[in-house]
Amino acid sequence: MKLIRFGAEGNEKPGVQLPDGTRIDVSAFGQDYNEEFFGSNGIEQLENWLKTNQDNCPIISNDTRLGVPLTRPSKIVCVGLNYAKHAQEAGMAIPKEPVLFFKSTTALCGPNDDVIIPKNSEKTDWEVELAIVIGKKASYVKEVDAFNYVAGYVLHNDVSERAFQIEKEGQWCKGKGCDTFAPLGPFIATKDEIKNPNNLELWLDVNGERLQYSSTSDFIFNVQEVVSYISQYMTLLPGDIISTGTPFGVGLGFNPPKYLKPGDTMELGIEGLGTSKQVAKAYK
Amino acid sequence: MKLIRFGAEGNEKPGVQLPDGTRIDVSAFGQDYNEEFFGSNGIEQLENWLKTNQDNCPIISNDTRLGVPLTRPSKIVCVGLNYAKHAQEAGMAIPKEPVLFFKSTTALCGPNDDVIIPKNSEKTDWEVELAIVIGKKASYVKEVDAFNYVAGYVLHNDVSERAFQIEKEGQWCKGKGCDTFAPLGPFIATKDEIKNPNNLELWLDVNGERLQYSSTSDFIFNVQEVVSYISQYMTLLPGDIISTGTPFGVGLGFNPPKYLKPGDTMELGIEGLGTSKQVAKAYK
Repeated sequence: MKLIRFGAEGNEKPGVQLPDGTRIDVSAFGQDYNEEFFGSNGIEQLENWLKTNQDNCPIISNDTRLGVPLTRPSKIVCVGLNYAKHAQEAGMAIPKEPVLFFKSTTALCGPNDDVIIPKNSEKTDWEVELAIVIGKKASYVKEVDAFNYVAGYVLHNDVSERAFQIEKEGQWCKGKGCDTFAPLGPFIATKDEIKNPNNLELWLDVNGERLQYSSTSDFIFNVQEVVSYISQYMTLLPGDIISTGTPFGVGLGFNPPKYLKPGDTMELGIEGLGTSKQVAKAYK
Repeated sequence: MKLIRFGAEGNEKPGVQLPDGTRIDVSAFGQDYNEEFFGSNGIEQLENWLKTNQDNCPIISNDTRLGVPLTRPSKIVCVGLNYAKHAQEAGMAIPKEPVLFFKSTTALCGPNDDVIIPKNSEKTDWEVELAIVIGKKASYVKEVDAFNYVAGYVLHNDVSERAFQIEKEGQWCKGKGCDTFAPLGPFIATKDEIKNPNNLELWLDVNGERLQYSSTSDFIFNVQEVVSYISQYMTLLPGDIISTGTPFGVGLGFNPPKYLKPGDTMELGIEGLGTSKQVAKAYK
């Protein structure tokens, strides 16, 4: 099943994208895609509800805005430098254990919303990533059990301001948490749809030019390893997001580096998880 | 006004601590201390409501557990190394601009709850800190306007696992976001109660021995500077927490370092913001 949310920012409603691409409004199911939904078999209950109610669900027109496909999670945990060739282009060592950082949840936006280049930014960059949606409270989870804690997967652009991230003093969060720096979606694919999350092609184009193209089979740490690892340091709640890192091809890695200018377009996708498209805009 | 929340974990209700120390249940006001409360003049409305309803509010017995004095915020932004002498004891340079990191919101616990030493931890440490509660959506705020965006202040113990924070690869978040690593409270003092947040004594005792003792007048970056600075990198939402850094005297700074063992007691306080007490326990 493919979970979407649609409508104006701040007033999104839950929906489902059907196998033929039709999008339907499932507000009548009575629950938004939040911690309680993921943590109490909401996916299974929605599937059952649809068996008898799908034909009565209003169809959403294709030009309706898509929002973040879940409500605000308690946290977005990101894995840094999780593809060897990307670590090299960033000038950093290949990590021996997962490098973690948090992204502010206020950075979330819809999959096709504008990405706002912050004030005083000159180095806003792109990062296509596979994100995991947690389905069950997870603490000290073993790798062998990790998939039991996963609800699904979603496409994420981990937009990053490199001067804020690396040149400013301290930790990476200044360059990772800016507003609109986490376009998420178009949909959450429930885990039954993705046979092997550790073998998915992913790509990102800037102004039509393919700059990132790789496969999650190049992960240094795979899905079950990162879920287990993070759960050794904090409890993951249903609906929490783990973003698994980006492959080679970010702007920082070019010589000279390439960064986003107002009007630039990013289009990205992951096999089985659809595509998204954002236009970079200057802050006004 | 002093805002508290009380009751069993996960079922807390909002209350108020009166000037004479009596705690009353204000559930009948109809709103918990959440983003909407702080963002829509909830403090003023509660004050007005109390003028006619205070006498009908049930009194809470003194042995009732205190919870986190607000509902889950969208984020906890922390300022690192914000006291010069603490930067020295940590072996780090005095920062030229605020060092920021995020603390997981799943780390929050009540002011007198047990602090759980995580599995595989040998270096769990204490950090008394003044925390700011945001009262209004804040983006690109000027220093001169910063206090308009503050709802109040609260005592915070920024518990930190130093091996996870510093010796593990990557960013500090592994050692900052463990469950129970953010005891918050006893109460949020609304900003009218604190004449000058940049001149408050703060202290922390371990097993009765005073190890931290300083004043927020020693801040490198004061309250209005950190609110303004953070708002250049991300939008702060009503109810968000900024923790302003800890003074000299953490376990890491001793030679040899001192870290928490099961049974150790931390007692901490800030002038005008009350005291809290946590017992360290081993993870079971």
